[in-house]
Amino acid sequence: MWKEVLSVTFYQAVFTEFLATSIYVFFGLGSVLQWPSALPTILQISITFNLAAATVVQIAWHVSGAHVNPAVTMAFLLGSRISLARAACYMVAQLAGGIAGAATLYGVTPAEVQGSLGINTSLCHPFPQVRSNITSGQAVAVELILTFQLVLCYFASTDRHRNANSPATFIGISVALGHLIGGFVPNGCFKTNKKHIFWVGPMTGAILASLIYNVLLYPDLKSLSQRL
Amino acid sequence: MWKEVLSVTFYQAVFTEFLATSIYVFFGLGSVLQWPSALPTILQISITFNLAAATVVQIAWHVSGAHVNPAVTMAFLLGSRISLARAACYMVAQLAGGIAGAATLYGVTPAEVQGSLGINTSLCHPFPQVRSNITSGQAVAVELILTFQLVLCYFASTDRHRNANSPATFIGISVALGHLIGGFVPNGCFKTNKKHIFWVGPMTGAILASLIYNVLLYPDLKSLSQRL
Amino acid sequence: MWKEVLSVTFYQAVFTEFLATSIYVFFGLGSVLQWPSALPTILQISITFNLAAATVVQIAWHVSGAHVNPAVTMAFLLGSRISLARAACYMVAQLAGGIAGAATLYGVTPAEVQGSLGINTSLCHPFPQVRSNITSGQAVAVELILTFQLVLCYFASTDRHRNANSPATFIGISVALGHLIGGFVPNGCFKTNKKHIFWVGPMTGAILASLIYNVLLYPDLKSLSQRL
Amino acid sequence: MWKEVLSVTFYQAVFTEFLATSIYVFFGLGSVLQWPSALPTILQISITFNLAAATVVQIAWHVSGAHVNPAVTMAFLLGSRISLARAACYMVAQLAGGIAGAATLYGVTPAEVQGSLGINTSLCHPFPQVRSNITSGQAVAVELILTFQLVLCYFASTDRHRNANSPATFIGISVALGHLIGGFVPNGCFKTNKKHIFWVGPMTGAILASLIYNVLLYPDLKSLSQRL
Repeated sequence: MWKEVLSVTFYQAVFTEFLATSIYVFFGLGSVLQWPSALPTILQISITFNLAAATVVQIAWHVSGAHVNPAVTMAFLLGSRISLARAACYMVAQLAGGIAGAATLYGVTPAEVQGSLGINTSLCHPFPQVRSNITSGQAVAVELILTFQLVLCYFASTDRHRNANSPATFIGISVALGHLIGGFVPNGCFKTNKKHIFWVGPMTGAILASLIYNVLLYPDLKSLSQRL
Repeated sequence: MWKEVLSVTFYQAVFTEFLATSIYVFFGLGSVLQWPSALPTILQISITFNLAAATVVQIAWHVSGAHVNPAVTMAFLLGSRISLARAACYMVAQLAGGIAGAATLYGVTPAEVQGSLGINTSLCHPFPQVRSNITSGQAVAVELILTFQLVLCYFASTDRHRNANSPATFIGISVALGHLIGGFVPNGCFKTNKKHIFWVGPMTGAILASLIYNVLLYPDLKSLSQRL
Repeated sequence: MWKEVLSVTFYQAVFTEFLATSIYVFFGLGSVLQWPSALPTILQISITFNLAAATVVQIAWHVSGAHVNPAVTMAFLLGSRISLARAACYMVAQLAGGIAGAATLYGVTPAEVQGSLGINTSLCHPFPQVRSNITSGQAVAVELILTFQLVLCYFASTDRHRNANSPATFIGISVALGHLIGGFVPNGCFKTNKKHIFWVGPMTGAILASLIYNVLLYPDLKSLSQRL
Repeated sequence: MWKEVLSVTFYQAVFTEFLATSIYVFFGLGSVLQWPSALPTILQISITFNLAAATVVQIAWHVSGAHVNPAVTMAFLLGSRISLARAACYMVAQLAGGIAGAATLYGVTPAEVQGSLGINTSLCHPFPQVRSNITSGQAVAVELILTFQLVLCYFASTDRHRNANSPATFIGISVALGHLIGGFVPNGCFKTNKKHIFWVGPMTGAILASLIYNVLLYPDLKSLSQRL
């Protein structure tokens, strides 16, 4: 393990996760800015997330694998694809990158379009009118399903045995799919005491997808025993 | 045949068809939910179906071939690409997956946006205003053509002799093409006694496409005699 | 030459051009149907043409090269990529396919949405309000440029020395690009005596693109002398 | 160096940059034409730029590398991927191509839709209503970030060690991403004395991206010393 952590490529990968996440968050949050008379639609937001995810995955996947998301890193850790040290550093880099991206966006846009944009409420979608009486349990389930299909798509697209090409197109597609459906469901800004929805749902979905992919669909017992 | 049916990979494939169809139906039906003041357009629905099809094909094609549709399975059976046992199990898995996906969506969304969403009426498109006096025969013909081009695209994109890459992009494109045109035509909810439209049309289109592809465009007599 | 014309693969290719063009025209024209309260936008029409072109190229390119357009066939003839006999048969097949596709669409849609849809006026875009005083010369020049970039993209994407993969994605993109810009310019229905615009412009653009690609960008003198 | 500048392939590459940039600018500017009652949306403009970039990169990348942008050429010069002579000729060809493309568009469209279209103001986006009090410094920062991610994506997608396929898809995606966000920010037409924004921002972003890619992410010291 020390060999990995002390190598230059390890720090290149961690820095790349930071960079990719900051670009991703800058453009993703940028798509929900409240420009007067040109309010974004859910289609436009989803397309922006598609392009942002595809771009950063294309930039980063040869260096770090381009997780850009703690839930994806968790799934790769569970699937024995990355070490614990790498997973921990990736998650810290992703959180720092997310803050850096949001702060940069905050710095380069006028105050009147930022709306409730900010680090704490960055997951609020700009559709207050689509508020409906969805329960917390339903919101957790939706978040779970969105991350579930994303992580399955990540595994299927980054598996070197089955893919010679860049996974960027398909990860962009899967991210946009989630926003097209999920954009409505966790509508409005959940109050602070409901923020767990955005951790419990995705993490459970990631764990479930990692188990189904690595145990049921593509069992790879040798690599499992080797890495543990 | 017993050798195939008793292998682990056979059950992995059947389970994968179930899983892929349930994800596909969850997101596809999710795109037609009637959120107030944000009714979906045909473009948005078609794009969602594009992304959903591409995602599940990308996840499933190495395991099961990612048919996700009884008409496609029928076409592959006719083209001697899969055995009868596999085709039968795939179709059962697809129907079960469709029900599971719709039921999950039903469980995680509030009642007021579900509209006429449900297993029986899941093919209703949300454009009551686009109702026109199209006949049942015309609707069957349109469904036939939509499945015809989809199945031709499936064969062309999954043929291992001609493609090294994932067929997911092109199947997503072909699915969306069908929704962009077909979304208008079988408009409104056909009454129960017209449900045969959604079986007769696609199945005839699939059979026709399978014949044209395997007999006229890419005759593969050796493999035909081998597999029978 | 007789050897080529008497082979089975020659007739497979000609039939494939017929089939691909009929599917392409069915969906392309289908995108401009005048459904009440859901008039298509130029973006939706362009996306439909993108998906239709990508689908039929994906289906046909291994058999016939998927020209689907007399101007593209003309450019390939000039570039010495296909024989005169093949070019002539392709063009006849494309015209017949176009008529078949339009007639099929006519048969499966109710009269009230067909508008001015028909074989003679099939190039009318549904934007009468965007009528402006563009001259015939300007319209020819725009048609020339649209075909020019399409043919360059065809050559660059189907060149076996430079591409292992399907050209379908890029041809779809290039077709849609033309519709996004050209959809406005030859606006309204040109009168019958202006129909030459849709022959003179594209054919000149195709010839120009063929010369620039084969003489300036990728001169391939050996193949030229061999084939003549 | 003289050997490179005196070769035929060098002039093919310079001509290709001219041709590709003129097509790109023709279609890009064409997307912002002010057709009455069909004003373009930011989504449609971004999609047009996506398709235009993908098409010209697909046409040009085997000949010239398809920079189509002085900032990209600057980044490749800094990364020791091209010689100074090539960079200089590319930039001249790009500027000439941009003028040619804009002049051609001017020639083929009626005056009433050209709005403020013209060479000097070609970067004005048609959203006067989205004017907000963004500062010059903020605008420079936004332009910097847009070019930064584009150049990173260029390097990652054109690196022959890591990509066998065409970079056209990903460069189109990255260009569109920039327009989806940047379309709002440098809103309205900056006055002439603020035109430096469109040189200082992109050039700084390109330099930064070139340093980060070539020094931090993919250090290639051998090639660096060889080429200098």
